[in-house]
Amino acid sequence: MHKSAPAPNIILELIQYNEKDFAGYVNLGIDELLAKQKPDQVNWVNLDGLSDTTIINKIGEHYSLHSLLVEDISKDQQPKDYLFFSLKMLYRIEKNVIDYEQISFVLGKNFLISFQEKEGDLFGSFRDRIRLDQGRVRKEKVDYLLYRLVDIIVDNYYTVLDSIGQQIEQIEDDIYKDSTGQEFRKIQRLKKELIYLRKALYPLRDAMSKLVKDDSGFIASSNTRFFSDVYSHVAHLIDSLDTYKDLTSGLMDIYINTLNTRMNEVMKVLTIISTIFIPLTFIVGVYGMNFDFMPELRWELGYFGVWIVMLLMVIVMIRYFKYKKWF
Amino acid sequence: MHKSAPAPNIILELIQYNEKDFAGYVNLGIDELLAKQKPDQVNWVNLDGLSDTTIINKIGEHYSLHSLLVEDISKDQQPKDYLFFSLKMLYRIEKNVIDYEQISFVLGKNFLISFQEKEGDLFGSFRDRIRLDQGRVRKEKVDYLLYRLVDIIVDNYYTVLDSIGQQIEQIEDDIYKDSTGQEFRKIQRLKKELIYLRKALYPLRDAMSKLVKDDSGFIASSNTRFFSDVYSHVAHLIDSLDTYKDLTSGLMDIYINTLNTRMNEVMKVLTIISTIFIPLTFIVGVYGMNFDFMPELRWELGYFGVWIVMLLMVIVMIRYFKYKKWF
Amino acid sequence: MHKSAPAPNIILELIQYNEKDFAGYVNLGIDELLAKQKPDQVNWVNLDGLSDTTIINKIGEHYSLHSLLVEDISKDQQPKDYLFFSLKMLYRIEKNVIDYEQISFVLGKNFLISFQEKEGDLFGSFRDRIRLDQGRVRKEKVDYLLYRLVDIIVDNYYTVLDSIGQQIEQIEDDIYKDSTGQEFRKIQRLKKELIYLRKALYPLRDAMSKLVKDDSGFIASSNTRFFSDVYSHVAHLIDSLDTYKDLTSGLMDIYINTLNTRMNEVMKVLTIISTIFIPLTFIVGVYGMNFDFMPELRWELGYFGVWIVMLLMVIVMIRYFKYKKWF
Amino acid sequence: MHKSAPAPNIILELIQYNEKDFAGYVNLGIDELLAKQKPDQVNWVNLDGLSDTTIINKIGEHYSLHSLLVEDISKDQQPKDYLFFSLKMLYRIEKNVIDYEQISFVLGKNFLISFQEKEGDLFGSFRDRIRLDQGRVRKEKVDYLLYRLVDIIVDNYYTVLDSIGQQIEQIEDDIYKDSTGQEFRKIQRLKKELIYLRKALYPLRDAMSKLVKDDSGFIASSNTRFFSDVYSHVAHLIDSLDTYKDLTSGLMDIYINTLNTRMNEVMKVLTIISTIFIPLTFIVGVYGMNFDFMPELRWELGYFGVWIVMLLMVIVMIRYFKYKKWF
Amino acid sequence: MHKSAPAPNIILELIQYNEKDFAGYVNLGIDELLAKQKPDQVNWVNLDGLSDTTIINKIGEHYSLHSLLVEDISKDQQPKDYLFFSLKMLYRIEKNVIDYEQISFVLGKNFLISFQEKEGDLFGSFRDRIRLDQGRVRKEKVDYLLYRLVDIIVDNYYTVLDSIGQQIEQIEDDIYKDSTGQEFRKIQRLKKELIYLRKALYPLRDAMSKLVKDDSGFIASSNTRFFSDVYSHVAHLIDSLDTYKDLTSGLMDIYINTLNTRMNEVMKVLTIISTIFIPLTFIVGVYGMNFDFMPELRWELGYFGVWIVMLLMVIVMIRYFKYKKWF
Repeated sequence: MHKSAPAPNIILELIQYNEKDFAGYVNLGIDELLAKQKPDQVNWVNLDGLSDTTIINKIGEHYSLHSLLVEDISKDQQPKDYLFFSLKMLYRIEKNVIDYEQISFVLGKNFLISFQEKEGDLFGSFRDRIRLDQGRVRKEKVDYLLYRLVDIIVDNYYTVLDSIGQQIEQIEDDIYKDSTGQEFRKIQRLKKELIYLRKALYPLRDAMSKLVKDDSGFIASSNTRFFSDVYSHVAHLIDSLDTYKDLTSGLMDIYINTLNTRMNEVMKVLTIISTIFIPLTFIVGVYGMNFDFMPELRWELGYFGVWIVMLLMVIVMIRYFKYKKWF
Repeated sequence: MHKSAPAPNIILELIQYNEKDFAGYVNLGIDELLAKQKPDQVNWVNLDGLSDTTIINKIGEHYSLHSLLVEDISKDQQPKDYLFFSLKMLYRIEKNVIDYEQISFVLGKNFLISFQEKEGDLFGSFRDRIRLDQGRVRKEKVDYLLYRLVDIIVDNYYTVLDSIGQQIEQIEDDIYKDSTGQEFRKIQRLKKELIYLRKALYPLRDAMSKLVKDDSGFIASSNTRFFSDVYSHVAHLIDSLDTYKDLTSGLMDIYINTLNTRMNEVMKVLTIISTIFIPLTFIVGVYGMNFDFMPELRWELGYFGVWIVMLLMVIVMIRYFKYKKWF
Repeated sequence: MHKSAPAPNIILELIQYNEKDFAGYVNLGIDELLAKQKPDQVNWVNLDGLSDTTIINKIGEHYSLHSLLVEDISKDQQPKDYLFFSLKMLYRIEKNVIDYEQISFVLGKNFLISFQEKEGDLFGSFRDRIRLDQGRVRKEKVDYLLYRLVDIIVDNYYTVLDSIGQQIEQIEDDIYKDSTGQEFRKIQRLKKELIYLRKALYPLRDAMSKLVKDDSGFIASSNTRFFSDVYSHVAHLIDSLDTYKDLTSGLMDIYINTLNTRMNEVMKVLTIISTIFIPLTFIVGVYGMNFDFMPELRWELGYFGVWIVMLLMVIVMIRYFKYKKWF
Repeated sequence: MHKSAPAPNIILELIQYNEKDFAGYVNLGIDELLAKQKPDQVNWVNLDGLSDTTIINKIGEHYSLHSLLVEDISKDQQPKDYLFFSLKMLYRIEKNVIDYEQISFVLGKNFLISFQEKEGDLFGSFRDRIRLDQGRVRKEKVDYLLYRLVDIIVDNYYTVLDSIGQQIEQIEDDIYKDSTGQEFRKIQRLKKELIYLRKALYPLRDAMSKLVKDDSGFIASSNTRFFSDVYSHVAHLIDSLDTYKDLTSGLMDIYINTLNTRMNEVMKVLTIISTIFIPLTFIVGVYGMNFDFMPELRWELGYFGVWIVMLLMVIVMIRYFKYKKWF
Repeated sequence: MHKSAPAPNIILELIQYNEKDFAGYVNLGIDELLAKQKPDQVNWVNLDGLSDTTIINKIGEHYSLHSLLVEDISKDQQPKDYLFFSLKMLYRIEKNVIDYEQISFVLGKNFLISFQEKEGDLFGSFRDRIRLDQGRVRKEKVDYLLYRLVDIIVDNYYTVLDSIGQQIEQIEDDIYKDSTGQEFRKIQRLKKELIYLRKALYPLRDAMSKLVKDDSGFIASSNTRFFSDVYSHVAHLIDSLDTYKDLTSGLMDIYINTLNTRMNEVMKVLTIISTIFIPLTFIVGVYGMNFDFMPELRWELGYFGVWIVMLLMVIVMIRYFKYKKWF
């Protein structure tokens, strides 16, 4: 790739191709980049980091984007001379931490601009595929490029949801086998992740729905079925999300039941010990009294008799507990 | 049936018939199979196991299926030259374990292709009915064949739901009669099954709804009422599912109440025993003290008197518990 | 009524009338019955018990009902030469047990066939009204007959729902006044009944909605308002059902709160008794020790002093409990 | 007002006016009343109590109301020669008890009939306004009269909902400050009231929606905006209802949390007392044993030493509780 | 600004501008104010405080507003000669207290009237922007002014929701780290705020939706996209609200679990102490009895033996608790 002077906060990238040619530029200056646009090729402009508004404004001017769009890159406006939408990209998954990034696409007749909040994305190996002319992307127009990018984003959701499914199974096993009380936090974390995933997936579904119904001509009607395919993937993801939500709320029931069952066991132990020994302690207390006149104390078999009585009491009480199924 | 060389991972099967003729082939090679297609007969191609993509691709080429369809056999695309949809088939029910299998159908003018994930299906006895020319299936076209297969799949859901209904009744009885604490897991398992059944039934309903509204001509309008009948079956199944969901959540209430009732009983026993004996133990402790000057100890009726006092206390306390309805 | 040879499992009944004539036949043979049909009269054929498929098939042939309809009398098909729908009839209410029966109606130009699962129905006194020419039923066509039958069925739901409303009030009173723990089962039973009622009422509403919108000509447009009236009754029933569902779930809250309040009371008694006597028992234990050198034991007012100390402790503790509002 | 012979169970009232004239009659006989109708004036016929069906039938005949309507005054039928609808009127609010009354209106070209279940209504001061010709009601037609009556009914709902809002605030304060356990019943009562209010408000909204969309000509199009205004009031009431429902369910959470917090406090007191004194009681028990050979008993500082040991134990345990933040 | 005589309860303000001129008047008398209207400029009339109905009526007369609108400034009526809607403005946020204020707008061809319930608003710095001719507001018509005001109101909701999001995180941390029991009230307060926010946001969304669909010509079609942008902001706010609602209900689960975990710990301590010492106390009680014949008392190693036995018991019990994972 042709390297150019780096910009500190914002990464500019241009990938240009048609069936014959390919060129990729990283860290071009914005003016250089805009000068390089070729109308007979697919021009993919990618921005990482949205901090430098002058760059965004320059791009906006070049492509004559609506000022509101430039101001507020995260809202859904459907202007007439290009197609705009944004969605959330799952960015990194490291040690069960999910990171989201807003990514916005502007699709014109022969160009695609992608605005990313942060550096780094999921498209690394796909960039290589374009360069090496693998698959059909070089033979297709810019709408197919958009489809491939969106598809990569959606596929990543599948990976995340599958991992959540496995975690649910794992936590359920942990609780049943040997609950340490740590499961509660794990369940709460899963719940939160599902809440955030839902917040990301619903707009994604709406965006896909708009693309499928779109008749502006930016997406060739022969390619609509690709977006329709992505749409049905997202719908399926939302279904899975609901399923996982139900399963997670089931996990909470299981966790709480385990807690209650243990509490009950503790209470039973306390009750059994108390119920057996408190009356016995009373009896031995009786014969620890110092009254001058206590005839039993003089009986030769008194001590032995008290033991018999106490033994009988224990037997009766154990039978009672067995009858009550306390152990 | 004509047997041919077996393929290790994937089972190919061809059933061909019209009113006069019938032929069934198992484990044909894919090329053989495709060569055998007869346009004047109903051709049912069935694949068990989707691991061998070359076979799927060959079928795709032969029937000119869309590449996306072949790539992703589990998504809903409605191409124009054939009818495609997939649904979940309940596969085996053994010891209360439900297994699901994705089954996809491609319906053309005179052929039906069914893709199954795993070996084995519910259509065994129905294959015999075709061979033996029982019922009207041999007199009908390929759309009627599709109806019968879908109907068999849906009927199996009824069996499963009925068994869930019985389990709910059984568990409720168990909890009321003699809860062992094992019911909790059973309830959780039921809940999970209902969640998965719902996840399978909603797409099934949508698929049927599409077939009923279909006007592509693959389903004869005189046969639409069959699919409409299946549709209303599925709608009824979903109603039952909701009912069972409510009943299962009622089961949880019953289970938890049983647990709480027992806990309360345990607490009452503890409280009764403690409340009776703790004060008595105090009294006998008093007269176990070694003070030089304790006049009661010298009284002749002291010991007897203490017993009287303690008896009166017990009577008062038992009355109090009776009044409080603790036993 | 003209009586004829009884059929063991299935009861066939024919009621024929117009403004002038009336004839009722019970337990006719199926062939006899079909021969008796008069096109210039209202012919109401009623079957109790659906076990004998040959009879059902014969009726199907006579009226040329669609085979699918005959096969599966419980599904909603709207054929073109007659009107078909089924609904659930509350059958008997004895000792709070509700029994359901599927009843299916086939309405033709001058005949109405009603299929009942079991013997016995709610139409006894209405049959008499027809025979005695009470009300306007004899002056009306077969669509009015259908309206009256459906209306009777719906009215019976009102009776059942009213009884549920009264039970809810009764149970609430019971819990507040003097809960015996039996209320839990009653609440669960109510909940189940409401679940089953809902499962019966929704299809009923849908069936009525279809009848109201029907433009097949089987229901005279002047009579549509009768069915519209039934429809609004059913909608009102469903509203009441939702209200009762909320009230029943409120009952559970009340029940559980009562349980918890009692549990708390038990715990307080335990705590009060323990907190008062455990320290006292310790004190008397101290002076029950047998050390050679324990100066207090020799004091003349030692015993008296201990009692004073213990009394003061009790007073302080009771004040503390009062302050904490424990009693 | 002209007074006439009273009817025991049913109160008949006729208010007649146009811009010039006004006449009000109470307790007219039904025949008298019907004879007094003047087509050039607004005729408001009001019935309190629906027990006397002959009167209702006579009114029905006079205005040629549909028989079904007369039979069942509480259902929504929209006949063509007059406008009919019913709604629930909050009748009296005394000591937090809400009473409902079904009120039905029949609006014709120049007459309005109102059927009330019970005696007494909210229209007292409005009757005076008509009589004294205050506001614009005398200048308007009968549709404006209907608007005013409905508006009065809806305004009363506001009063009730506001009072519920205040009660919620009050109960929340009570629970936080000094819960007596009485709050539970109050919350349950609120919940029930909200359930019944919802059951009354939804039909009211539907009725208003019908009036707004009505194009039968009974409501002058220039007056539609009045009913549209009432409609938006009712919609706002339903929004408030949902808000109050959420707040009430929040109240339950607060109440239950208070209960649990107290229970925990009770348990802590019990545990602290037991944990401190049970070990001490054991120690003094040890030196209350009567073994011949117990060296400690002979030590001069034995008794003093036991006190030291016990004091140290108490200090350790209190530190432990402080560390655990039990008090 | 030109200052004039102050009105005690109501603040009247007029801001007039076009691209060239600007004039701002505070506390004008109503008549003065109305006289100052200039048809060739944007006239923004702002009222703080709605207590003085004569002023409102005068404004109503001047602009020929519908009487119902004037009567009831808080309801949605869409008259034909101007555009009317109201929404809730978050007014002040001080120490986590949110205050709401109803603000109503009347948009005419060249005037905008804003009715505020209370003094003070969020528009202070925006007034300065107009005066200083910053941004494009002076170049635009009155519809753009409306857009800017609404946008400022909606932006303020974002600030509030973000602060709620931070509070949720904070409370979750507090509970996990070191719950003081104060979190419960904070959670309840958050819940209440979310309920009230929802009650404010839904009408706001509806109002925006009406503005976007409006075709009355009061909003230039080129400016519709601004309101559409605000609409999507509000939709996004409602999504966030739902997310926060779920998170808050998750907080409650966490709080309750913390409470239960502590309760269980308390119970375990109680049970461990009781289970260890109650049996020991019984044993020492036995040898505190005063029977004449108790052979163990005479054994030389009796006392020592009792200690051994008790030590063994303690070891066994501690092992049992360890096995049960009680500590």
